[in-house]
Amino acid sequence: MTQNNNIFEQSLDQNAANYAALSPISFLERSAFVYPHKTATVNGNIRKNWAEVYDRCRQLASALNKRGITKGQTVSIIAPNISEHFEAHFGIPMSGAVLNSINTRLDAEAISFILQHAETKVLLVDREFSEVAEKALKMVPNKPLIIDIDDPNYVGGHLIGELTYDAFLEEGDADYTWSVPDNEWDAISLNYTSGTTGDPKGVVYHYRGAYLNAVSNVMSWNMVNHPVYLWTLPMFHCNGWCFPWTIAATSGTSVSLRQVRPELIYDLIKTEKVGYFCGAPIVLNMLNSASQELKAGINHEVKVMTAGAAPPAAVIQGMEEMGFKVTHVYGLTETYGPSVVCAWHDKWDDENEAQKAKLKSRQGVRAPMLDELMIADPSTLIPVPKDGKSIGEIFMRGNLIMKGYLKNTSTTNAAFKGGWFHSGDLAVWHEDGYIEIKDRSKDVIISGGENISSIEIEDILYRHPKIQEAAVVAKHDDKWGETPCAFITLAPDAELTEQEVINSCKDNMANFKAPKTVIFGELPKTSTGKIQKFVLREQANDADRL
Amino acid sequence: MTQNNNIFEQSLDQNAANYAALSPISFLERSAFVYPHKTATVNGNIRKNWAEVYDRCRQLASALNKRGITKGQTVSIIAPNISEHFEAHFGIPMSGAVLNSINTRLDAEAISFILQHAETKVLLVDREFSEVAEKALKMVPNKPLIIDIDDPNYVGGHLIGELTYDAFLEEGDADYTWSVPDNEWDAISLNYTSGTTGDPKGVVYHYRGAYLNAVSNVMSWNMVNHPVYLWTLPMFHCNGWCFPWTIAATSGTSVSLRQVRPELIYDLIKTEKVGYFCGAPIVLNMLNSASQELKAGINHEVKVMTAGAAPPAAVIQGMEEMGFKVTHVYGLTETYGPSVVCAWHDKWDDENEAQKAKLKSRQGVRAPMLDELMIADPSTLIPVPKDGKSIGEIFMRGNLIMKGYLKNTSTTNAAFKGGWFHSGDLAVWHEDGYIEIKDRSKDVIISGGENISSIEIEDILYRHPKIQEAAVVAKHDDKWGETPCAFITLAPDAELTEQEVINSCKDNMANFKAPKTVIFGELPKTSTGKIQKFVLREQANDADRL
Repeated sequence: MTQNNNIFEQSLDQNAANYAALSPISFLERSAFVYPHKTATVNGNIRKNWAEVYDRCRQLASALNKRGITKGQTVSIIAPNISEHFEAHFGIPMSGAVLNSINTRLDAEAISFILQHAETKVLLVDREFSEVAEKALKMVPNKPLIIDIDDPNYVGGHLIGELTYDAFLEEGDADYTWSVPDNEWDAISLNYTSGTTGDPKGVVYHYRGAYLNAVSNVMSWNMVNHPVYLWTLPMFHCNGWCFPWTIAATSGTSVSLRQVRPELIYDLIKTEKVGYFCGAPIVLNMLNSASQELKAGINHEVKVMTAGAAPPAAVIQGMEEMGFKVTHVYGLTETYGPSVVCAWHDKWDDENEAQKAKLKSRQGVRAPMLDELMIADPSTLIPVPKDGKSIGEIFMRGNLIMKGYLKNTSTTNAAFKGGWFHSGDLAVWHEDGYIEIKDRSKDVIISGGENISSIEIEDILYRHPKIQEAAVVAKHDDKWGETPCAFITLAPDAELTEQEVINSCKDNMANFKAPKTVIFGELPKTSTGKIQKFVLREQANDADRL
Repeated sequence: MTQNNNIFEQSLDQNAANYAALSPISFLERSAFVYPHKTATVNGNIRKNWAEVYDRCRQLASALNKRGITKGQTVSIIAPNISEHFEAHFGIPMSGAVLNSINTRLDAEAISFILQHAETKVLLVDREFSEVAEKALKMVPNKPLIIDIDDPNYVGGHLIGELTYDAFLEEGDADYTWSVPDNEWDAISLNYTSGTTGDPKGVVYHYRGAYLNAVSNVMSWNMVNHPVYLWTLPMFHCNGWCFPWTIAATSGTSVSLRQVRPELIYDLIKTEKVGYFCGAPIVLNMLNSASQELKAGINHEVKVMTAGAAPPAAVIQGMEEMGFKVTHVYGLTETYGPSVVCAWHDKWDDENEAQKAKLKSRQGVRAPMLDELMIADPSTLIPVPKDGKSIGEIFMRGNLIMKGYLKNTSTTNAAFKGGWFHSGDLAVWHEDGYIEIKDRSKDVIISGGENISSIEIEDILYRHPKIQEAAVVAKHDDKWGETPCAFITLAPDAELTEQEVINSCKDNMANFKAPKTVIFGELPKTSTGKIQKFVLREQANDADRL
């Protein structure tokens, strides 16, 4: 052992006075202490302040402990974006347990898989999902304790558990000394990827990453204290992109939203003075297409964060014209939600609306607390040139990357191969360092040896006034290998022929890139609103065989 | 060894993809990448953008390494608040070395003590301080490499070193791969406390704390991207409260200020559109007393952060009436500067100006990233009641507390005794959880067995329109033990008698608390603008003996 001659490492160790594990729960404690009377959660006419929410979270943690739940055990929840779900983001970790928010759009089989894989000990279920939960539980050999969330604002479903959430809280003690993590690397939550194929993978988040991404959101979005945040984004999606913890960090207000409907959203924006919401482009599209009557009467700034797919420029432009300020971000379940942001430049304000929207439709640069981001060759990890043309895979590394996949060492190792997280998304790097997604690896269309980006075609299609939604996939072709096949939902009362669609593409891009086939109809979507390209891919090829 | 059954701790370890040491240098790299053409530093007519500053910092790090500087060695700087000093906050740590900013108001003996205690290997000196540096270096047996900062905006002093800063940068390579900390607990800087008695103590900061306090500043102050920050606060003071790193985190602009003069400050606020500055109450007082002509013509919001002593309510009120938004913070060198903030409540806006200023003069609550704060009995560490009356010592713990004192184990251990940092400041805890400093431990006046807060008396004195500055200390008294002795600087052309001062206090507080002695004149100050109460204490007692 060599002697350490570094004078800055002598008798200067960590101790209880100068080191604490990073934990987003500390933000809850602070909001309750500093702003006890500020409204923390709103669910219809039920409002709770930060002191009350902190008490309820401590009761939840205490009640879980009294029922024998300890560190490293999983507590799952199937619930919409309501206050109880918000509380679960604090109360469950405060017991030492790991929070697992289950996608409410999954079927019973998938839910049952998750409950077994996560070894769930307690399951909180909102009445709206009682039926699917009951069905899932039939397939689970080791039954968890079931607790019903009995939201008075919702009519329907039934109680399937041992007791209600409120009765369970009664078992707990609001003076309870909650558990702080022994280590900031401890797991705080478990989020299953919706996965278009195969079993869902359990992405494990740690306290350090949850804390840092909560703060990274604040900085990316230029948030100031007391944001009123509306839950258009599912909380089961990357823990609502870590926004429950961001809201606590900024002593804001969490506004519940059980269903993503434009009337409800516009109503809450006006009555609660909502200033912030997140959502997939499909949500923006829905709001954009709403009636003028709904849109009228908003007199304050509304900031919108969008991700989940590259939002078509037309959608971004529509929102901005309405006066909403859109920030485009990008991330994956594995990166705690948004870890890349299209950071705005003031000088871009001088561009015309179309060019602004084009700039904004790029995914951008690393979020303030992501450590590194690159577009590189997937096998050599050598970065591609910043020329806006060379396609590579998106790689990230640093503190906003998951611990790994639960009970899945080989997949974890593959995801982290070479010391970088492999996103599986393909992008180019523009000269200014901003990345732009060209496709998921598997969504690239290789036609006659040329790579065609399905997103590039979709972007053209979305600009067509008669097209409401579009998705392009590869279709097997004996001559070309693959050709682009476009699936299109027309705007209400609009009419278009296949040839008109193809011609309109040819007018705007290299001819070889234009779709060879066009299919009209509704687009199948995943539970998080992503278009299910694997379904379309089957349909494209089935159509061929018919 | 027991088997670990926690499924969340199996094959989910840290690796290069999912863990990075927290380092504020990452903010510089990001600003240079995302906003390369944005102005980063302004020094008179010399402006540099983030790409240029990043290059220069890499050159500095590279040049230091080429001269043999390695991890754990100290590089000191004696310079005013100019761009080179800003760069030193990045370039020096990027070489692996530890940054030591020396108080420019120290005498040669104190500087020589620091250079020897810190084992300084390289010293950067601005011409303005060449004389004192030369004198100090004569007393240092192991001479460091001397590099001159030759600021064209300054006339005076002379070059005392081997080469200039710009020539030194030329030795370095802008493509240099800079050193990232092996561990976020590594030392990033060393700040000597000005210490009213005894040798200065070397407070060691680590990368983790510097990163977190840089961000905590953003959140405390509700900062948004691209702040224009003016250097009214010395960079040698707790690394400018970590603001060089905060400015990098927000891609802002660092505006140099060699001398704290109202004409210069008002001019820069207007020409550079300065939106943020920090300073001791004395700076606010100076700005407050400036001519109407200087004050006129500011049409944008200016945020002011103040600390260093409890600012008298009258000073806060004066600034707010001018339209500046004052945030009151509190901290010590040992807490990276501000770690407590008087977090504002919207409802306080409805109070009258005097009451608002009164609320704002309290030190407040823990900053977003300080983990714990309490007022407690110094021997038992039992918190005092939140009654606004019971006095205890301020204790903090968590990530915004120093590593410890360099080469001073016993003082480090004493400071961290019981797992809390002992601030040495005395305060009460109000019912709403906000703390208010009553005194430094040694500044309490114990008169006839009653504790009298010198700050309470000072606050009354400052409200008097004819009093410009006031300080109260204990004076030995045979009958009472101690009595309050007030030192007063009158406003220009104002006249007051001792008895008038005493009567005005008696009108506003319990009679026993009123000063028994009043001495008129200039108040002695430390280099950071704090009134030197130990000097006044001597004067108070000397006066008695005459």
